[in-house]
Amino acid sequence: MPRDFAINLTTIREAANRIDGQVIRTPVVQSVILDKALGAQVFFKCENQQHVGAFKSRGACNAVFSLTENEAAAGVVAHSSGNHAAALARAAQLRGIAAHIVMPHDSAIVKINAVRGYGVEPTFCEPDSDSRQAAADKVIAATGATFIHPFNDDRVIAGQGTSALELLDEVSDLDAIIVPVGGGGLLSGTLIAAKSLNPNTKVYATEPEWADDAFRSVQSGTIELPVRHDSIADGLRTCLGTLTFPIVRELVDDVLLVSEEEIGAATLAMMFQAKVVAEPSGAVPLAAAIRNKDRFAGQRIGIVVSGGNLDPSTLQRLIANSDT
Amino acid sequence: MPRDFAINLTTIREAANRIDGQVIRTPVVQSVILDKALGAQVFFKCENQQHVGAFKSRGACNAVFSLTENEAAAGVVAHSSGNHAAALARAAQLRGIAAHIVMPHDSAIVKINAVRGYGVEPTFCEPDSDSRQAAADKVIAATGATFIHPFNDDRVIAGQGTSALELLDEVSDLDAIIVPVGGGGLLSGTLIAAKSLNPNTKVYATEPEWADDAFRSVQSGTIELPVRHDSIADGLRTCLGTLTFPIVRELVDDVLLVSEEEIGAATLAMMFQAKVVAEPSGAVPLAAAIRNKDRFAGQRIGIVVSGGNLDPSTLQRLIANSDT
Repeated sequence: MPRDFAINLTTIREAANRIDGQVIRTPVVQSVILDKALGAQVFFKCENQQHVGAFKSRGACNAVFSLTENEAAAGVVAHSSGNHAAALARAAQLRGIAAHIVMPHDSAIVKINAVRGYGVEPTFCEPDSDSRQAAADKVIAATGATFIHPFNDDRVIAGQGTSALELLDEVSDLDAIIVPVGGGGLLSGTLIAAKSLNPNTKVYATEPEWADDAFRSVQSGTIELPVRHDSIADGLRTCLGTLTFPIVRELVDDVLLVSEEEIGAATLAMMFQAKVVAEPSGAVPLAAAIRNKDRFAGQRIGIVVSGGNLDPSTLQRLIANSDT
Repeated sequence: MPRDFAINLTTIREAANRIDGQVIRTPVVQSVILDKALGAQVFFKCENQQHVGAFKSRGACNAVFSLTENEAAAGVVAHSSGNHAAALARAAQLRGIAAHIVMPHDSAIVKINAVRGYGVEPTFCEPDSDSRQAAADKVIAATGATFIHPFNDDRVIAGQGTSALELLDEVSDLDAIIVPVGGGGLLSGTLIAAKSLNPNTKVYATEPEWADDAFRSVQSGTIELPVRHDSIADGLRTCLGTLTFPIVRELVDDVLLVSEEEIGAATLAMMFQAKVVAEPSGAVPLAAAIRNKDRFAGQRIGIVVSGGNLDPSTLQRLIANSDT
């Protein structure tokens, strides 16, 4: 049982009840071919099938539905160029409140349209982080809206933990769970859920070598920044937060690094062998399982496929560069 | 309730019990984006997640486990260049009996390796249908093995019907089910299951314009042959059988045709919008739903995604030819 964090098994269970019916209980699938290749049994928790195509819907819904009536009346605000933006817009629409989404003006059109699909016209800003925060602060000053951070928020972390809760409810006795780590929201929620339910289940974080900040943070004992920002696993380029780092440092069993080539190969293996559409960030755990085959031999491994928003042109490039 | 065929709801339920644990209860998933685009609610029954990546595992398992001990001792035989070959090899391995798989020597390497993966070395023959049957007959004469046809076999048809049984168990009150039709095994099993459980549920067959033999067969009242054999939906190029045609003619509500372009677009929509890996044959029902949008507006539609054995080079070509 982990020591007292603001998030514990109870808050994750409360989150699960709160968002019940507003998020999808995603399927768990297996692949005989990959199991044979790995000499292990792998259970894929398919958050690619979640609303907005990523686990982010869980945390966003829990945050929005945790607000008091008064707080909710003033709306919510976030800056994001990714899946959190659409997830928060969707959650706000479900509760019938305003969402203010600040997006860098160079965000991908598909991400902008996802937000618009939930009835929110984004506020555009310059792409640097100061401009993003300034634009959000301006909205907060004008509206009193509640800021919902994509990972450094207890309500968000508890929401993300509900994926592991479902996985462990469906598949008992996992030897290990492998989770991708960006800001650490999904990882922290998974750590609290898994270690509370079964302290013997190992939980491994995994990230690209090109975004190895969590690996270095756990080694140094302080939040390290990424050095480069060009990994194909674009969901994992960010650093840990002040709320996620203490949980990760205390509870994670190891941080496993993978190369860009390994991520690409795993994305294709997810698609053509497991028949699961994963974005590169969501294929990073399989890449880690393959690279560390000896460590996981004979084990039952849960893998959280964090999202499925794979770009056709990225996929096309991966196929062209592969041996298939 | 359909009139008396050799297959009825009871034989399909018996099949479900017989193959329980040997096939996967595949997930049913939805896509908010596609639902919005269609103005309908679509439930995808994901046979791409079935063993060997296709519904064929159901019929093959039911056939193999229906054999008496004496029959089983002599093994089974089939000729197939596709998913039935691997499905039968797997089913025989599960029962611990011999499988003789006759394959044209120009079969795709991936299909040959799939058979080998279940411990069976295929018997190779010339690619024409006479050579295939002659090679199978030779095996039967030498071994007494039971011939298992990929669709024109009551045990196989009953097994394929278990997919619709699961779908209707999970999602009640479907207005319609759309099923791809090649030889008609999956379609016949679905027709018997669905029309027995709820005569008001419409069941539509769908096939490529380039393989419109079922459409013409229902019109003419006799089994028509396909004129060309080059549709991208390679699982649907064959004609109906003597056991499947009477069921299809009596029970199907309509046969919907789709173009090659519509199949390609639907394969990409399955992947990038529903996040479901479908081979072109498995995307044909979505193509039919899109083409007949007005007919299905406001309805709850079940779609059987028959398989997910999508070739990387096919996918690459589809992306290159699309507007994305």
